[in-house]
Amino acid sequence: MNVKIEIEYDGTNYHGWQKQKNSISIQEIMENAIKKVLKEEVKLIGAGRTDAGVHAKGQVANFHTNTKIPIEKLPYAINSQLPPDIVVKSATIVPEDFHARYSAKAKVYTYTIYNSKFPSPFYRYYSYFYPFQLDLKSMREAASYIVGEHDFAAFKASNSSVKNTVRTVNSLEVIKLGDIIKIEVEANGFLYNMVRIIAGTLLNVGIRKIKPEEIIKIIESKDRSRAGPTLPASGLCLEKVIYDEA
Amino acid sequence: MNVKIEIEYDGTNYHGWQKQKNSISIQEIMENAIKKVLKEEVKLIGAGRTDAGVHAKGQVANFHTNTKIPIEKLPYAINSQLPPDIVVKSATIVPEDFHARYSAKAKVYTYTIYNSKFPSPFYRYYSYFYPFQLDLKSMREAASYIVGEHDFAAFKASNSSVKNTVRTVNSLEVIKLGDIIKIEVEANGFLYNMVRIIAGTLLNVGIRKIKPEEIIKIIESKDRSRAGPTLPASGLCLEKVIYDEA
Repeated sequence: MNVKIEIEYDGTNYHGWQKQKNSISIQEIMENAIKKVLKEEVKLIGAGRTDAGVHAKGQVANFHTNTKIPIEKLPYAINSQLPPDIVVKSATIVPEDFHARYSAKAKVYTYTIYNSKFPSPFYRYYSYFYPFQLDLKSMREAASYIVGEHDFAAFKASNSSVKNTVRTVNSLEVIKLGDIIKIEVEANGFLYNMVRIIAGTLLNVGIRKIKPEEIIKIIESKDRSRAGPTLPASGLCLEKVIYDEA
Repeated sequence: MNVKIEIEYDGTNYHGWQKQKNSISIQEIMENAIKKVLKEEVKLIGAGRTDAGVHAKGQVANFHTNTKIPIEKLPYAINSQLPPDIVVKSATIVPEDFHARYSAKAKVYTYTIYNSKFPSPFYRYYSYFYPFQLDLKSMREAASYIVGEHDFAAFKASNSSVKNTVRTVNSLEVIKLGDIIKIEVEANGFLYNMVRIIAGTLLNVGIRKIKPEEIIKIIESKDRSRAGPTLPASGLCLEKVIYDEA
């Protein structure tokens, strides 16, 4: 059977989702935990390949198994083999052809800026600290130009070799909650570092280094050097992966 | 001059506020940082002597100094000598007789319960995880009996030798925000472990082990064994210290 799981993790201590030689990944920790529980090797397919230090509240993964363990007991069994910074929140049986990455219709990421005179110890691993005032109105106007189908070549890491750089941003909100500014992006797909570059570009709009309407030209330019900086991984969180159903 | 500072800290890695032999305290780290900045020894008086693992968003302390460093630069200077889990948020000059502890009119603590089927990695150091359903209505009724001036002997750690156990609880709220239940207590003073015992008692009300109106008898009994358990330090946070002015 094909099992879909939802996972929450604090990415601070890991070198990202994806398994790799010589450094510890969430995928590897999870596959080892599942192996201990099921007594069989599984290959875990993750929806989002989050980078080192990036967090997830709603990562989704799937794996194929012949286990007889009741599906509702699976999260407890796997969690018993996981460190406290990785937690399985649910497990469901899905159709055989469900693929956590390819079946995803959209994903939601947030980028958190801690915007106050002094940093907060509680947000040191979960935000980017920025002490100066930000013009939220301009940031929101700039965000509105990013929404829609565009070639986002200017918003991808320069070392990324992906060919098709057209993506659709379904929504992009700039939300203020006390000292926290959350940039929430939903898109049908993301280029490498795309959210962190969008956040850095909106930050530059917030300090009036970029005018909101310049965003249109930055997109058109397809030139990475015209967008803002790639903000640090710590502020990024994969909130949710959206599928056609459940 | 007498300087009042507000401090925010993640208490996870410390053995509480108060300086002690053989273990690391926030007071000691702070005094060392201030000494490096001012080039003079200071004695830091903290408003609340938080325990190991307890956090603070609004700890207040004061110290006497002859420094010439402008007061508005002091937080930046001290923070430059502090680890990222301790942050000075403000510094103000106060009258010579201001004493962070004795001048305090009231303090506000919160106790955070993470109430969901599975724990959250992000709250693992900042809450007590409790997976079963809680009857909030009963918890709020129980809380209402705790408000007021009472002898709180039943709500103090049994190893505490304090003589006068009468305190006034100004307010006690049970607030639900998604998976988070926050118990917020304002009182003119707190006995040792008082908030953690109040939280454990309200939890027992929430699972219907204690009836709300039994709280009245538990207070009257002055018997520690009749109140609920002392919940773990991780859920506790000193939010605010209240003074007559400033």
